[in-house]
This record gives sequence, C-alpha cells and structure tokens, in this order.
Amino acid sequence: MSAFSIIEDFRVKTNQAFLDKAAVLEPVLNRRTIKPKYMVSVEEDQYGEAVVRKTAEMWELSSMHFRKGNKVVFDFGDHQVGYVSFTAEALGSHFDAPAYIRLKFAEVPAELMEDSDAYDGWLSKSWIQEDVLHLDILPYTEKLPRRYAFRYMQIEILDTSPKYSLKLSNIICNYASAVEMSSIEPLGSEDEMLNDIDRISIKTLMDCMQKVFEDGPKRDRRLWLGDFRLQARVNYVTFKNFDMVKRCLYLFAGMTFHDGRMGACFFHEPDLQVDDTYLMDYALFFCPVLWDYYEASGDEETLQELYPQAVGQINICIETMLDENHIVIDQGETFWCFLDWGEGLNKQAGAQAVLIYAIRYGIRLARALGDYERVQQLEKQMDILKKAAVETFWNEELGMFVSGNERQVSWATQVWMILARVFNEEKSRELILHTQQMNPEISMVTPYMYHHYVDALIQCKEEEKALAEMKRYWGGMIKDGADTFWEVYNPCNKQESPYGCAMVNSYCHAWSCTPAYLLRKFYKGNEKFKELFRSVDDR
Amino acid sequence: MSAFSIIEDFRVKTNQAFLDKAAVLEPVLNRRTIKPKYMVSVEEDQYGEAVVRKTAEMWELSSMHFRKGNKVVFDFGDHQVGYVSFTAEALGSHFDAPAYIRLKFAEVPAELMEDSDAYDGWLSKSWIQEDVLHLDILPYTEKLPRRYAFRYMQIEILDTSPKYSLKLSNIICNYASAVEMSSIEPLGSEDEMLNDIDRISIKTLMDCMQKVFEDGPKRDRRLWLGDFRLQARVNYVTFKNFDMVKRCLYLFAGMTFHDGRMGACFFHEPDLQVDDTYLMDYALFFCPVLWDYYEASGDEETLQELYPQAVGQINICIETMLDENHIVIDQGETFWCFLDWGEGLNKQAGAQAVLIYAIRYGIRLARALGDYERVQQLEKQMDILKKAAVETFWNEELGMFVSGNERQVSWATQVWMILARVFNEEKSRELILHTQQMNPEISMVTPYMYHHYVDALIQCKEEEKALAEMKRYWGGMIKDGADTFWEVYNPCNKQESPYGCAMVNSYCHAWSCTPAYLLRKFYKGNEKFKELFRSVDDR
Repeated sequence: MSAFSIIEDFRVKTNQAFLDKAAVLEPVLNRRTIKPKYMVSVEEDQYGEAVVRKTAEMWELSSMHFRKGNKVVFDFGDHQVGYVSFTAEALGSHFDAPAYIRLKFAEVPAELMEDSDAYDGWLSKSWIQEDVLHLDILPYTEKLPRRYAFRYMQIEILDTSPKYSLKLSNIICNYASAVEMSSIEPLGSEDEMLNDIDRISIKTLMDCMQKVFEDGPKRDRRLWLGDFRLQARVNYVTFKNFDMVKRCLYLFAGMTFHDGRMGACFFHEPDLQVDDTYLMDYALFFCPVLWDYYEASGDEETLQELYPQAVGQINICIETMLDENHIVIDQGETFWCFLDWGEGLNKQAGAQAVLIYAIRYGIRLARALGDYERVQQLEKQMDILKKAAVETFWNEELGMFVSGNERQVSWATQVWMILARVFNEEKSRELILHTQQMNPEISMVTPYMYHHYVDALIQCKEEEKALAEMKRYWGGMIKDGADTFWEVYNPCNKQESPYGCAMVNSYCHAWSCTPAYLLRKFYKGNEKFKELFRSVDDR
Repeated sequence: MSAFSIIEDFRVKTNQAFLDKAAVLEPVLNRRTIKPKYMVSVEEDQYGEAVVRKTAEMWELSSMHFRKGNKVVFDFGDHQVGYVSFTAEALGSHFDAPAYIRLKFAEVPAELMEDSDAYDGWLSKSWIQEDVLHLDILPYTEKLPRRYAFRYMQIEILDTSPKYSLKLSNIICNYASAVEMSSIEPLGSEDEMLNDIDRISIKTLMDCMQKVFEDGPKRDRRLWLGDFRLQARVNYVTFKNFDMVKRCLYLFAGMTFHDGRMGACFFHEPDLQVDDTYLMDYALFFCPVLWDYYEASGDEETLQELYPQAVGQINICIETMLDENHIVIDQGETFWCFLDWGEGLNKQAGAQAVLIYAIRYGIRLARALGDYERVQQLEKQMDILKKAAVETFWNEELGMFVSGNERQVSWATQVWMILARVFNEEKSRELILHTQQMNPEISMVTPYMYHHYVDALIQCKEEEKALAEMKRYWGGMIKDGADTFWEVYNPCNKQESPYGCAMVNSYCHAWSCTPAYLLRKFYKGNEKFKELFRSVDDR
C-alpha cells in the first residue's frame, strides 16, 4: 500500500503572525564532535542476518592503504545525526587519476548488506543514505554537505589508479541536536532493561529534535502532528524544551488548509509549507498537544491564541466527517486517517474513537479558558458519539468492537475505543484482556500503535501487564540491536516495511520514544512500583 | 597491456628558479558561457552504433516535467571543456524527498550508451564522467564543482517522489581555455574537408590549452612531453601562445629525476610533481621542443638556460641506454619508450631512431649557441648511431627495418628511421612507398603515430600522398562524427582502446591536432599546392 495524498489546486490559509512566532523560536543546534570507536566488518550469517565484528582499532587506520575494491566500515558506537568529514590522501608514486569512492551510512548493520540498485519500494529511493564521490584533488578534507543519520559509515573504494592507494584520517561526525541528554536524570531503576529502554527512548527523541520535532532524522525529517504529540509528551518528562513545542504548535496553526483543517505534516525547508495531506486523527491531535503543552508549561497566552483552532478541528470533523447516525464515514483505502501502518486495517471505528478522545481534550481546553458553553456542547457531542460508537461497532457476541463494512476486528480499534473511554474502566479492562486472549489477526506493526496499546493497559490499571509488554516489545528491539528505537518493529517479521522495502525504514523514529514518558509518568514515583526504583529512593 | 611505471624511493632534482619562472607564466583562463543547442535522444541502431536525433528545442524545456526514470540529453553543439550549472525546481504538491539524479557527460554519443558498471579497463574508472547527486533543497542552482569535457550532457532522474516532478532550467557550461580561436585566420582552402580538418585540429588544441598543455581535457589532463612537442608546433602556426610553451619547458626542466633524466609527464595539481615515468623518446623530445620554441619565439635567454638539460637528455641515453655496438638495449614489455599504443609493438629500433632524430636537434641547439665542440661531438655520435642502426636493423631482403630479438617489422620502425634520416631522401622515399605496399601487420593505432607517418611522407616529398592520408585518417574521424580529434582512431576497429575499454578513451586529444600544423606549414603558401588555396590568394 502506497499511502500519500495529493490535492490538485491546493489552497492554504496563512496566519503570518503565528508563523513569525514560530520563526523566532527556531532553535540553535548544539554541535559535538564524535569520532568512530573502531572499524568493523558486517557480514551475513547463515540466517541472512547481519553480524558485526570488530576488525581494527582506530589507531590502526594510519597504517592502512585502501585500493580499488576495498571497503572499510567505521562504527561510531551509537546512533548519530550530523555532518561527516574526513581527510583523504594519496599514497604511492603519484595521484594520477581522481579517487572514486562510495559512501554508505547505516543506522543498522543490515542496511550495509542491501543492494540499493535492487530497491523497489514506493518511497523515494533518494532516502537511501548513499553517495558517490570523485576526489579530484588530494590531499583533501571532504566536508560532506548532507546530514546523515547513522551509526555505521562505510567507505568503499571504487577506484584509485595503479599508481596510488588512499589513506583516510580525521573521520569525524559533527553531531547536531537542539537538546543535550547529559542534563537528564537517569531513570534509576533496579531493572537494567528499563534503564536501557528509557535511555534509548531519550536518545531517540534527542536525535529527532532538530529545527523542529522531526519524525526521523534519516527519512522524512519533518514535523508530523501525530508524531509530534508523542514527542512532546516525552519532552515534558525529559528535556523540557517548551520552546520547540510552542514553535511547532504555531507552525501547524500558522498555515492550514483554506477551510481551516490542519495538515498532517509540516515542511519547514526550504520554506514553510503545510503538506496537502489531511489525516483526521492527526488533525484532531492538535487538542491533546495543546492541552499537554499548557499543562506542562502553564503558557496561557498560547492556549488562548490556539484554542479556537484546536476546537475548530473537532467541529470540522463533526460537520464534515459524520453520517446521519453520528458515525464517521469510512473513506476506505484512501489516506484519510492513520492509526497504524499495516495492510488492510480498517480505520472507521478507530477514527470515531480518536474523535471522542480529542473531544475529551477539547473539553479540558474549554474548561481551562472558562468557555463553559463550549464545554457543554462538547460534552453533549461526546455522549452522542460514544453512544453511536457502541451501537454501531460493538459486537456483543465477539466481545469486541468491529470496524467498516466488513466488520473487521483489529487491535487498533479496541485500543482506541479504550483510550476514548467509550466504556467505563472495568469494562475497558475486560475488553483489553479479552483482546489479548483473542489476539485479532489485524495486529499492530508500529511502536506508535504499541504505545497506544500500553497506554490503554495503564489506563485500565493493568500496569504490570503494560510493563511486561513494554519490556517485550521495546526490549525486543534492544535485543535485536537497536541503538535508537525503530519506526517499525514486528518481532515476527523483521523485514516488515510499510514502504515495500526495509531499506528506507527509519531506525531512529520519534514515535517510538514513548517508554521514557510512560516509565517516568506512570511508574517512577508510583507507590505500587517502588521496588522497581528502590535504588533511587534508598540513596 | 597496462602501461605504467612506478619507481620505489623515487627521488627528484628541483631547480626552484625554473619552477618560479613557470609559476609566473601560469595563464588566466578565458571563460565563456555556452548554452545547449537542443535536446536529443541517443539510441543504438542495428549495427550497435549511436544514433543522435533531435527531440526538442531548448525553449520547450520550461514546460517539461521530469519524473523517476526520465532521461534528457542536452546537446551543446560542439565539444566543451568547463564547469556546468543548472537550476532544478520541484513542481507538484510538495518537495517531500530529495531529488536523486545521475549526470553523464559524453564527448561522443556512444559514451551515453555505455554501462559504467561494466567498465573493466586498467585505467581508473574514476575518469568516466558520471556523477550522482542528491538535491536536498529545491529550488536550487547546482554549480557542479568538477570540470567536464563533453558535448552531450545527460540528466537521468533516479527518483523524485510521488508528490513532485522536476523542472530544469538555466543549463549552462562555463567554457574555459587559455586561448581564443576567433583570432585565427581560417585555412581558406578550396577543399572544404581540409578546412574542416584544420578547424577541428585548432578546436582540439584550444580545448587542451588550460593551465598547461593538457593531453586531453577528459582524462589524464596533464602535460606529457611527447604530446607537448606536437601541441607546441600547432600553437606556433595558430595561437602563438609562446608563454605557455615557455612555462611547460621550465616545468620539465625545473623538476627531473635525481640523475637528470626528464620525466615523461608532469603534474601541476595539487602541487608540482614530475611523474616517475621515464620514456626514452619523450625525454629526448626536449631537444626538438626547445629548438622549435627558439625558432618560433627567438627567446635566446630560455635557449641558453635550458640547453644543458636538452643535450643532457641525449648524453644520458648514450651513456646508459646503449650496448657496446651503439644499439639501444631493448627493454621489452616495460614502459620505457612510447612510439605508439598497440599490442606487441617492439620499440628497440624506433628508440634508436628517436635518439638519432633528437641528436639532429641537439646539433641545431649547439650551433645556435656557438657550442661547436658539442656540434662536432654530436655529429660524430649521430654517424655512429646511424651506421649501427643500419647494420643491426636493416633487412635487405625485406627492404625494411626490423626491431628486437624477434626481428619485428612495424610501421613505427620505418617511419622513425625515415624521420631520423638514417637514409638519404631518395632511399627514404623508397622505404616509405615499400612500407605502404607491404603494409606490415604491426600497424599504427594513434593519430600521434599517424602524424609521424604523414610527416615522414612530407619529408620524402610525397606531399600528395601525405595529404591523401591526412584526409583519409582525420577526415575519417570527421565522417565518424568527431567534433574534436580523438586519442585513438582505428578505422577498422572503432572500439579500439589502449585501456581495455573505449569508455575511458579521450575524444579530444591534443596529439591528434597536428593537421593544422602540417597544412599551414607544408601546404599553405607552397607553390605546388596553390590550387588548394586559390580562394585565399585570389581574394
């Protein structure tokens, strides 16, 4: 399934004052020089999996001479986002022809084993981090102009000449991020896996915090509203960079569709543009994002300025997306609502649930501003929508919600109905446990969806189960070698990709960084889990 | 045959004052903006040859949108050497992924049909004029940093994204050369083919006149002594840029092997270096190059300064390269003497002939400086060498010279024995005519060797035949589509390459530009050929 939206004659509505506010808040990125830790080889084992072996220390590089066909892989020890430079010299009798090299940058070792010529996914091949260079003058310090997201950097010598070999030195990554991780207090759990999950979550978020909250620094590299909502939540319990959240809020509010709908995604380079992609769930998330920001920062001015557009997103949905029975109209295979990647997921019931969920945040916003008329109106709407949801989607026989004409049962639908609080806590708890038992075929493929599943478990007071799922899923990524958390992770199919080819999957993806939020908000400081954090309390 | 020399522990002798003189004479290059003439397609016909067809006018470019898989070829109408820039814009709903394009620059259309991945020659693959670019920000004017030699520029869109297509504009070549062709009086022959041969010769030389006399602007791009000798001769009857000749003379003299031998080749970038390649014939050519320069410029100071090194090259050969019978010792398959490319050519007799040829110029140099002792000495050596040459290499039965242990008969040996004037004019004439008749199997493959053959015919007063050969050979290149003359041309094997693959052949090669010299020196103004130039005389 290739999922994108193109709108002919796309017209936008701009609020220049809002965009100006966003511009002022553009962060200055911190830079740090990172050197590779050592050289490694990456080879396929008998199961086709990448095996990394250390081959040499960095000090050995000065005595290495590279010739046609040679490859060297530098392991930077951790995931990096930044600008790479290196020095190349010619050794031998004469530099009598340009040096011709291919660079590959890989977030995970498997990327180095891929043949990019074989790529046939539907996302642009241009995202594959590979560049071919001619070095016409040596010695030369090549400062690569492109930003890469990587842990492994491979240099392959396509050719020198019989007269010379190449010597490489000063291999450096100038790491860039808007934030610094060192200031954050470690989770301090007794359980080392939780500490690792937390640390890697924070590193994932840090690598994605650039001029905006990027979804992933390797690919897309831009601000998606759905991802932004989760990033901001993690940010409040870690970096506390309120300015970047504010900046992104004003970007989304500063340029919308001409009818006021918010774009799912925002481009900040080369100039500000709202994407001509409308995703119902993402647009509605402007309500929880604004509420979370207000709650964390206390910034009432921003709340007041952006409140009309937040509740506006709810009104647009109610006015344009519902049928006469107060049910979201299914828009089938078009790219109209996200929820999760995964073949064949029907979005109708999930979209209804997200609308209900957003209205809950809309009510909070209205209440905070004393707009009680709106509170009343929204409460009424929420009741109508909940009732309609149960009438239309609840299947008593299955004990689960269904979705769409085909009455599809999926994990996503159950999770969102729980988060929407369509049922009370007890009935929600029954539903999530029953769903676990039944394990619907239409499962979850992204950490984004898994986050909502864990969040639903916590909401149902199943924190133990939630913790176990977090350890199983995010811990599984760590066992599979994650330095930062991945865009897609299906423990049963490691080659899973929403793009037709895993080569363009992002392996540092912000929507996967939520365990730091979950652990710090619901577990740390929770009496029920004090054993888990004893080391901190007892110190 | 891969032909190169590598000397371990290579030591040089530097004359800084000479190198300083050369530095002062570095030319400022003229720049000119050239735009493509139109767009073309390049396709293979049933014989595997490239067929170029005009597909669109340049004004049509503004309405063209390029997507994944599209290719466009711009025809600049003539051979260019310079720096290319173009502007790319994204058209569509959003520029949501980098543009990924491949550029190919081709001197001849056949280069565009080649698959560079299949290249397996022994010269560096890095010479293939192909670059792959990611354009991360659009609109963008890409000023390509590398210099290309080309007529055709192909842009292939490797990928955009489903959301946008590319628009291209402002495609420009910033042409560079040390000289201007417009100031040169046309040959003005009645025979249009001669005018074409002359014009293309001069264009070939112009494209090679950069910071030094380059052998070819596509590949090597540097100063070879053997090529320089011919370039300088054409320069005296065309651009008359004495400074560039002087600069190159001082470069060769300013840095030699530690024992005084002159390198076959000189690198002027990134810093001054004499190549660790000694070719006996090339080193000896310093004598004719210096003489030609003195004769053309009257610059006696340079003659005086460089004379010791010129005759020094002769002395080194006499002292180190001869056996007790005054015969050059055959060094077999090593890269010790050039004469011509071509499989299996034995160089022994040819080298002997070049030594004799160089001594003739040494005598002229000595005479011009009144060094009569040296004149006497060189005349005596010349006689000894000529006598030894005839005794050792002349085969009365065959009526031709042989070379090497295998007694090989080649065109090159006969031509150089004639140019060395081992025989008198009459016997030389018999030899060249007999050689034509016998057509030795070891033939000529480069315009460099063909030049010497034509020169030999002219020396034997066979100017009519020489002219016919020039028209057949260089005219053949024109019929085969040459915009500038080629490094290698074998009318019987158009895929001939000394490098194992024609992809890296140079199609603008200075050693092929000599017809302008031959026509202007030996034909124009020659009473015998006044019919050929009537149009000029009668105006």
